[in-house]
Amino acid sequence: MLFTEEELREQISKLEGWKLEENIMVRKYMFSQYMKGIAFVDEVATISEAFDHHPHITIDYKTVTLRLKSNEEDGITALDIREVHEFNEAFEKNR
Amino acid sequence: MLFTEEELREQISKLEGWKLEENIMVRKYMFSQYMKGIAFVDEVATISEAFDHHPHITIDYKTVTLRLKSNEEDGITALDIREVHEFNEAFEKNR
Repeated sequence: MLFTEEELREQISKLEGWKLEENIMVRKYMFSQYMKGIAFVDEVATISEAFDHHPHITIDYKTVTLRLKSNEEDGITALDIREVHEFNEAFEKNR
Repeated sequence: MLFTEEELREQISKLEGWKLEENIMVRKYMFSQYMKGIAFVDEVATISEAFDHHPHITIDYKTVTLRLKSNEEDGITALDIREVHEFNEAFEKNR
């Protein structure tokens, strides 16, 4: 089930670094070393497999960008929000 | 040193799957499983560190796209070509 716009704004305000761009959740993560970004991507992949829900990932040297939405519902659901919290936790461990 | 257009065309014709898009070398690699694509990205990262030359990487579920150019020279050099051969070898091992 999709969030209302107000619910979604509240959910995203609790998520460090994330914003909404054209109905897609986006965060850029910056790393001090290239291989730290790659280790983070490995964790993101493991989390994505567990959720069976895979963000679009871009690696531009030390910057990793994740983009996530629920394709089936063409918007953001509680699943996306839970998953994104796990991405942020993985970042705190790997930064 | 940059290749001439003719030299570059010849070099790229020897590289399976690669093409030139607006002066950037590009290849999309497709995998049968998501985690195979991630294992490939790990190898690409290791190769990039060895060359100290990092491609732009996108992971879109089971499709990994690499984009490479020599920023210093704003084009394609022998270094890019050598590195891209190694990416293709890594793909053959991980596909």
